[in-house]
Amino acid sequence: MTETIYVVGHKNPDNDAISAAIGFAAFKNAICARDGIDAVYKPVRLGPLPVETAFNLERYGVEEPELIERVGEGDKVALVDHNEVRQSVDGIEDAEIVEIVDHHRIGGMVTAAPIPFTNRPTGSTAGIVTSLFRAEDLPIPQPIAACLLSACLTDTVILKSPTTTPFDHNQVAYLSTLLSVDPVEFGMELFRKRGGESEMDIDKLVGADSKEFAYRDKVVYIAQRETVDLKAVLDREDEIREYMKGLCESKGYEFAILMATDILAEGTQLLVEGNTAAVDAIFDITCQPGGVWMPGVLSRKKQIAAAVLGA
Amino acid sequence: MTETIYVVGHKNPDNDAISAAIGFAAFKNAICARDGIDAVYKPVRLGPLPVETAFNLERYGVEEPELIERVGEGDKVALVDHNEVRQSVDGIEDAEIVEIVDHHRIGGMVTAAPIPFTNRPTGSTAGIVTSLFRAEDLPIPQPIAACLLSACLTDTVILKSPTTTPFDHNQVAYLSTLLSVDPVEFGMELFRKRGGESEMDIDKLVGADSKEFAYRDKVVYIAQRETVDLKAVLDREDEIREYMKGLCESKGYEFAILMATDILAEGTQLLVEGNTAAVDAIFDITCQPGGVWMPGVLSRKKQIAAAVLGA
Repeated sequence: MTETIYVVGHKNPDNDAISAAIGFAAFKNAICARDGIDAVYKPVRLGPLPVETAFNLERYGVEEPELIERVGEGDKVALVDHNEVRQSVDGIEDAEIVEIVDHHRIGGMVTAAPIPFTNRPTGSTAGIVTSLFRAEDLPIPQPIAACLLSACLTDTVILKSPTTTPFDHNQVAYLSTLLSVDPVEFGMELFRKRGGESEMDIDKLVGADSKEFAYRDKVVYIAQRETVDLKAVLDREDEIREYMKGLCESKGYEFAILMATDILAEGTQLLVEGNTAAVDAIFDITCQPGGVWMPGVLSRKKQIAAAVLGA
Repeated sequence: MTETIYVVGHKNPDNDAISAAIGFAAFKNAICARDGIDAVYKPVRLGPLPVETAFNLERYGVEEPELIERVGEGDKVALVDHNEVRQSVDGIEDAEIVEIVDHHRIGGMVTAAPIPFTNRPTGSTAGIVTSLFRAEDLPIPQPIAACLLSACLTDTVILKSPTTTPFDHNQVAYLSTLLSVDPVEFGMELFRKRGGESEMDIDKLVGADSKEFAYRDKVVYIAQRETVDLKAVLDREDEIREYMKGLCESKGYEFAILMATDILAEGTQLLVEGNTAAVDAIFDITCQPGGVWMPGVLSRKKQIAAAVLGA
């Protein structure tokens, strides 16, 4: 009887959790076919498909992994993109974990028997899965390569995230060549699908990552929106300013800042409401309609808040 | 300042724990040299050198790893041949674990950050280290190859242990070719150094692995000596028989058996004292001076004790 092994990413799956599961299952099935092993690796998921994943799967004609809620005794499971029990599928304690591929910290997993555990401190699990195909000289079918490339690019924010390593660049170059695509364009398309910055609620757009800081005897508000689609954010400047003006009035902030940080261009467009003269003085800039472009500014804590606190 | 990273095997080190540490440190130092990384990996050990390890290191001019007792805050440590805190060097909780290479079960390790963790369900850690050199196309210096081959062969009992996989065969073939040695002869020499069956105390030779079993309303004694040097064991037949005769008298055993199991030849020489007629009847053999060779008999539990218990 053919044995089924579930390949599962973490709960609240992101693109890497799902796409790496698809890729790893394809890798293991290729190994089984080559070595005459009677087993089927089946990718599954623990939550809804992210927008960009759904888009990418449909584009390349890849079947959506089945949604499962739990596993149980007698089930065999391979974990990708996580290695901690509490991030894993319900019932995992009763199942048999047969393999792990991940890029996170080591999280206390215990198994009864030795299993393959491949962890690398690199940008994405999909990149590691790509390297497994390559180490075994196994061809990567185009749709699988597309899944892997998509996850390499979303998990590394198009190779700009601080977790990105030369290893990631190497895998992305390999997959891009295989697919004859430009990796940055390929990644931007996914982020545009995901971002939704044209449509999202203004309080999410501005407020999702916001903090209050002390400024002299006042309080100020500094929000940051990290984006790969700065234009979509700036197209909503009027709404953003209206929202921040309201915050200054209702909360008594001396000023409110939105850092619209363009991850790819590696800089921040600064939009300010309230006491703009104070901000001008702190940063030696001139606040104006359209905002102020600050090249190289990526860190709220180190590059903006520190200056405000020291003013 | 050059950073030092300790490479450490488990407590009560065997040949794999020490030789894989030497090999992995050499591998990482080769990577550092190639990539211009200013770090030194230093193999260390947590206990005395096994006899065969000392012999092999001296033969190939490899420096003995330094004996350490503990590590502490600020130390960086790579673990080989184990991945459990309680098997590791004292103070490991305060140190920073930077990498793990192992072939045991996953044992609950927790790290703060992502690290490389390479675990494979295969015969030896040294075989995995060998594959790391090969994956990076890095040459293995002869003395390092000798350390790795020695550990591949002792940990797999010259590729006969049930943990042995095609992966181990592959690494052993590679290393043997590199060293121009016959792997079985190379391994036998190590086991002869280790075994010491010519000199060890008779109660250890016979009694190290012994159990009592019920036989009708009597009790019997069945010991097993797994060896790669059957001749050294059988050369002491008179002593062995004297010792077992003494056991039958002092403990009232109906009979005493020593299974002298030749791992390489995959069979057992059976030496019996006491009621030999009963043993003859159970196994349909004729006990005699020199013992009885039973080809294919390796398991005390399944092939000897089960027959006694069922008699």
